[in-house]
Amino acid sequence: MSRSYLDPPLLIAALATVPGTSALAVIRASGPACIEGFAPCFSRPDALLAAPGHSLVHGSFLDVATGEKIDDVLVAVFRAPASPTGEDQVEISCHGSPVIIRRVLAVLEAAGFSTALPGEFTFRAFANGKQDLVGAEAIDELVSAPGDAARAEAIKRLGGGLSRRLEKARSTMLGLLAEAEVRLDYAEEDGSPADIFPIEPLQAFRDELASLAATWSIGRLHREGARVVIAGSTNVGKSSLFNLLVREERAIVSPEPGTTRDWIESDFELAGLPLRLIDTAGIREGPGHIEALGMERSRTLAEGADILLCLADATSGLGSGDEEFLRMRPDAIRLWNKVDSAAALPAPPGWIAFSALEGRGLPDLLSTLEGKLRELESRARGWTEAAPDPHATDEKGRADEKGRAAADFVVARPRQKSLLDRAVASLDEALAILEAWGGGFPSDSRSTAPAFPLDALALELRDAADALGELTGEIASPEVLEAIFSGFCLGK
Amino acid sequence: MSRSYLDPPLLIAALATVPGTSALAVIRASGPACIEGFAPCFSRPDALLAAPGHSLVHGSFLDVATGEKIDDVLVAVFRAPASPTGEDQVEISCHGSPVIIRRVLAVLEAAGFSTALPGEFTFRAFANGKQDLVGAEAIDELVSAPGDAARAEAIKRLGGGLSRRLEKARSTMLGLLAEAEVRLDYAEEDGSPADIFPIEPLQAFRDELASLAATWSIGRLHREGARVVIAGSTNVGKSSLFNLLVREERAIVSPEPGTTRDWIESDFELAGLPLRLIDTAGIREGPGHIEALGMERSRTLAEGADILLCLADATSGLGSGDEEFLRMRPDAIRLWNKVDSAAALPAPPGWIAFSALEGRGLPDLLSTLEGKLRELESRARGWTEAAPDPHATDEKGRADEKGRAAADFVVARPRQKSLLDRAVASLDEALAILEAWGGGFPSDSRSTAPAFPLDALALELRDAADALGELTGEIASPEVLEAIFSGFCLGK
Repeated sequence: MSRSYLDPPLLIAALATVPGTSALAVIRASGPACIEGFAPCFSRPDALLAAPGHSLVHGSFLDVATGEKIDDVLVAVFRAPASPTGEDQVEISCHGSPVIIRRVLAVLEAAGFSTALPGEFTFRAFANGKQDLVGAEAIDELVSAPGDAARAEAIKRLGGGLSRRLEKARSTMLGLLAEAEVRLDYAEEDGSPADIFPIEPLQAFRDELASLAATWSIGRLHREGARVVIAGSTNVGKSSLFNLLVREERAIVSPEPGTTRDWIESDFELAGLPLRLIDTAGIREGPGHIEALGMERSRTLAEGADILLCLADATSGLGSGDEEFLRMRPDAIRLWNKVDSAAALPAPPGWIAFSALEGRGLPDLLSTLEGKLRELESRARGWTEAAPDPHATDEKGRADEKGRAAADFVVARPRQKSLLDRAVASLDEALAILEAWGGGFPSDSRSTAPAFPLDALALELRDAADALGELTGEIASPEVLEAIFSGFCLGK
Repeated sequence: MSRSYLDPPLLIAALATVPGTSALAVIRASGPACIEGFAPCFSRPDALLAAPGHSLVHGSFLDVATGEKIDDVLVAVFRAPASPTGEDQVEISCHGSPVIIRRVLAVLEAAGFSTALPGEFTFRAFANGKQDLVGAEAIDELVSAPGDAARAEAIKRLGGGLSRRLEKARSTMLGLLAEAEVRLDYAEEDGSPADIFPIEPLQAFRDELASLAATWSIGRLHREGARVVIAGSTNVGKSSLFNLLVREERAIVSPEPGTTRDWIESDFELAGLPLRLIDTAGIREGPGHIEALGMERSRTLAEGADILLCLADATSGLGSGDEEFLRMRPDAIRLWNKVDSAAALPAPPGWIAFSALEGRGLPDLLSTLEGKLRELESRARGWTEAAPDPHATDEKGRADEKGRAAADFVVARPRQKSLLDRAVASLDEALAILEAWGGGFPSDSRSTAPAFPLDALALELRDAADALGELTGEIASPEVLEAIFSGFCLGK
């Protein structure tokens, strides 16, 4: 890609809706003098140019070269700076036909609009101060949220409350840093470092950030989904169970096309929690491969599962393979399959009498599965809430309160987690320096005590503040920005 | 479906964009007091209620039950009667996530919005006089246009010019009919029927309608695409050619996901003309089927093709199967495949030296194919232009002119074609009555001439006017309307 996000802003355009056939499609355009740039493609240029921001103008989209009418459209006009990108913008709502979309994009290109880079509209919102980086990332996370929990967490991040907290923490640290730097310049001092660098607020910020970093485990669970693996011997009915669950889900939970990625995996949602169902029957042996290889892969998948569904054959009873899975994962959900058969043995205690063929036992399975998902979730939440504890003392009630408040927000990206971890590690170092010193400044040059390591403290505070600055985008490098926005979907 | 298009209008809502993950999705709602009905789901009800028509309001979409913020949205407000449906309307532009779309639709349902029937928004536009039936159908045709020619024809129909002509023809016929009915009441007459029922304008309308009906052949070609069949013996490279063309097209012509419907067919567009490529290699024999059955099907497909691509093996020369295909279709495009092989024989005259493997000869094939498509198109256009001829005489210059003008429009639906045919047939009967009579009215009761068949003439005029009334929807029955709109896509 020869164009970069950091080039001077051109006129850009892209399809913002899913390509295909539907009632309507929206093509988004932005840039300096975007409305004037779009006017030659529109049958009512005067109405368009006179339109106030946040208004809709009806007319025809024309081929700039021939004047041919391409479609009847409704154009949403936004004027800088009160627009999503902070620039002049138009959103063209045309009929949802691939043929029309293609022609409109081609005409816009001829009229001087470049194809937008992925995430370029959001990048411009960021560059023009309409969104900080956490908010910009939240837009991408909203769009790709696999379930309602991930959506709810993303919309909170988009609201900006998290960013405001991070910015507050950063500015406090920058204040302390300025203090430290003044003292570095005027080395002679009276009083105690604890008066000037009070431990308590630093500790409180440290705890708040640690608590936020710990929300990563719940954020990841909500974003990636619990891995639910179906295991059992050959012909026990694993594929039937897989299809039953996928079909059930499609009918009940998700009227939109599913996100099945290949034959053996399907992502779906149960009671608002996303899960990825994996059918080990999907593991096929290529020619020349031995049966053992398939078994080995099943074992690896079963070990890595968040939840294991162990399927046994009611007509033949427990096999040695089943017993192996159960030894490995005593927490497995146990399904006594084929109870529809006349030859079925009664289900042992702890096993759900099940028929993948007839769907018998399905409500039982779904509620057990939901219970396990909730357990997983509360375990992840437990980590979240436990996070500030190691540092909590009776005197630090305020810190705990902040820690809990921060837990209203959940971080979603490895980038966010690792920058928070970095800030926490630096603050731990800073706190260790302050606590180790404890006493007064070496104002008395005749003192034999070692000099207060002001420079080391300044270094740690600077690093913590920089980590937060990268998080909110205040000091993100061009490379970081490029990496973040290029992962967005087109038209966003 | 228990609800009907003809029920009193409820609040309705539906997703109007393609489901899936994208920058944004649009959910459309309409109905009496739609803006008030939507207000409880919106964070800024006062701004919404105060918003003028054709304006955009930014805010949060809320769960009516819990007040939970579901997404940041932009709401387009339309006020009756200046709205697409003629009712109050809102269009909610949310982030394009299946999770968000699902929640927004569920909340709207809880707030009293019913799921819109397919085409119900367009139906309401029709019911409220914003669109006649030909225009309403054009919206559906626009969305499903397989190529630019079909799009251009649909946008012209949407413009209303065609409907205005049909309505003019109908009102002229209704005028003549009223005249005939008055004369039926007052049977005694002076003067000639030719003075009161002039043949010329009836003939002109008849020719105009016949010319329009004849555009059906070009409309069908543009809408359904030319059938291009790849034939040749086993292992000659039919699938490689199929994949080469499909890949070529996807890369060059259509950046949107294609519309491949199964393994052996793919719809695409070449130079604005749609075609359906059919690979006879896709015909597989089931177990127990004989080879001959596959050959028989290939032969049937080749016979029904608009264009046949005959593929021969350059390394073995012409086989008896190839010769059979060429005898059947001497107009086939001939591809001398595998010229990349060292064993290839030189291409005979009239054969394109080709390599499906390396893409050699592809530009030649594409331009030959385009030529054949243009030939097909001009043959269809020839029928269109020839249509009025059987009735054209030197004296009917005006009729010809009208016929050509009507040909600017193209009809697209079997419904439109058959109603036009019905109107033409009735006008032919009416003209025959007038021409057969020729003389004066039987005003003289002592005359021995047979009575002028005024009642038969009135019947034919009424039928022609009714056919046109059904076409524009002025007198369409509930069943006809139900049948038309239920074929539309959801959210339209």
